Amino acid sequence: MTPLEKINSMQIPFAQLKRVTFIEAEKDRVVARMLVRPDLCTLGHTIHGGAIMAFADSVGAAATIINLPDDAKGTTTIESKTNFMGGAKEGTTVVAIATPVHRGRRTQVWQTRLETEEGKLVALVTQTQMVL
Amino acid sequence: MTPLEKINSMQIPFAQLKRVTFIEAEKDRVVARMLVRPDLCTLGHTIHGGAIMAFADSVGAAATIINLPDDAKGTTTIESKTNFMGGAKEGTTVVAIATPVHRGRRTQVWQTRLETEEGKLVALVTQTQMVL
Amino acid sequence: MTPLEKINSMQIPFAQLKRVTFIEAEKDRVVARMLVRPDLCTLGHTIHGGAIMAFADSVGAAATIINLPDDAKGTTTIESKTNFMGGAKEGTTVVAIATPVHRGRRTQVWQTRLETEEGKLVALVTQTQMVL
Amino acid sequence: MTPLEKINSMQIPFAQLKRVTFIEAEKDRVVARMLVRPDLCTLGHTIHGGAIMAFADSVGAAATIINLPDDAKGTTTIESKTNFMGGAKEGTTVVAIATPVHRGRRTQVWQTRLETEEGKLVALVTQTQMVL
Repeated sequence: MTPLEKINSMQIPFAQLKRVTFIEAEKDRVVARMLVRPDLCTLGHTIHGGAIMAFADSVGAAATIINLPDDAKGTTTIESKTNFMGGAKEGTTVVAIATPVHRGRRTQVWQTRLETEEGKLVALVTQTQMVL
Repeated sequence: MTPLEKINSMQIPFAQLKRVTFIEAEKDRVVARMLVRPDLCTLGHTIHGGAIMAFADSVGAAATIINLPDDAKGTTTIESKTNFMGGAKEGTTVVAIATPVHRGRRTQVWQTRLETEEGKLVALVTQTQMVL
Repeated sequence: MTPLEKINSMQIPFAQLKRVTFIEAEKDRVVARMLVRPDLCTLGHTIHGGAIMAFADSVGAAATIINLPDDAKGTTTIESKTNFMGGAKEGTTVVAIATPVHRGRRTQVWQTRLETEEGKLVALVTQTQMVL
Repeated sequence: MTPLEKINSMQIPFAQLKRVTFIEAEKDRVVARMLVRPDLCTLGHTIHGGAIMAFADSVGAAATIINLPDDAKGTTTIESKTNFMGGAKEGTTVVAIATPVHRGRRTQVWQTRLETEEGKLVALVTQTQMVL
């Protein structure tokens, strides 16, 4: 099973509700896409900040999972920080790219950059995952 | 229109998707509830971290809105930080209580405490809202 | 040895450089004071943001230490988040009050409120401590 | 005056107390060094987390200043988030490299990577600066 197959096999309900699609998964980089559906928006037909954070959380957690040591029981997000920089309109697609900041025995720290398809920065998320 | 009516009239699509229900809205305190539906979960029938952050974001933003000065054009979340402390199982209800940390001319800072109905802490969210 | 004596016995060099004075230490609340000396300022004779964060870090870590289980080897800050709300002028005193958000087996989360002596909010710091 | 000369001319007292030395300053990248003096340490002759945050804050603020529009009155840090990844021993030098995440009209977001001279990651700091 490739890392991408592993991630796709997990079938996380909330990631499916938002229709997060993983398109690349290597140990050093996980990429996913999400269409800005009307029901993921706030007023003004723009992606809701909560949908941005939820999308990034799914990608950072997936990246941690494919980097867990064999004897780990799983992972849980212990904290997450988002800076919002720009909007993304209904009907466009947001791309999330997660790269590792730190992969330790007890914790992993991942940073996820969210962009429009044109490469405009939407948000930057840094999250700490506990290795269980 | 009371503050609660004002919040309920806004009809934010992503808050509706998660079925966020506001039950109290005063200038100093906004409270909402959300049922942990199966599609808001991660594996193990536990609320997804992203659903927690998205729920809190809705409550903090609503609290900001009812505190905006009359001449403000709106508000946008510029950053948000979450500490995750405990889980909430599918079928239970999470309660979010937002209280102000700072209400300035240019920014507002709100803190939202998320608990189970039994009062067990699930997460603590601190977010900064820009006054537009 | 009382918790306050324990904290005072630790003699942390960087806390001493800033002359952090602990005045209250109970398991649920640690309070310290720091005079805004000229060399703790930024331009304009106002406390430097870095001095605020450093002060809070000392107080949050001390609070963790007096709450460690007997078999713990120590604690380390794994992440810290500060919101800055107001200034404090050279020559005034800043008071830091740390209260627990979460005290678990693996991590503790503390929140430190920094105020002027008149009670004006200067900053709010939330930090996660790993239990070693 | 080059950007580096501008930064060096500012003479921030708290940066001087820690002896922060700026060695590179371009609009897209500011680099500084700080010797881990004994009085910047916590127990165990290791740099204090507060000294790390304070160092980074100085570098991020300096980077903002050389990117301010001509009509700006200054800048203030509104929030700062640090992830701590590794230690740095007394007597070694820590290098801070600040790069921009966002340079907007109202806010700038900078990320500062702190490393040992051997390139080992010590901490990652993300801060938001308000443009005044």
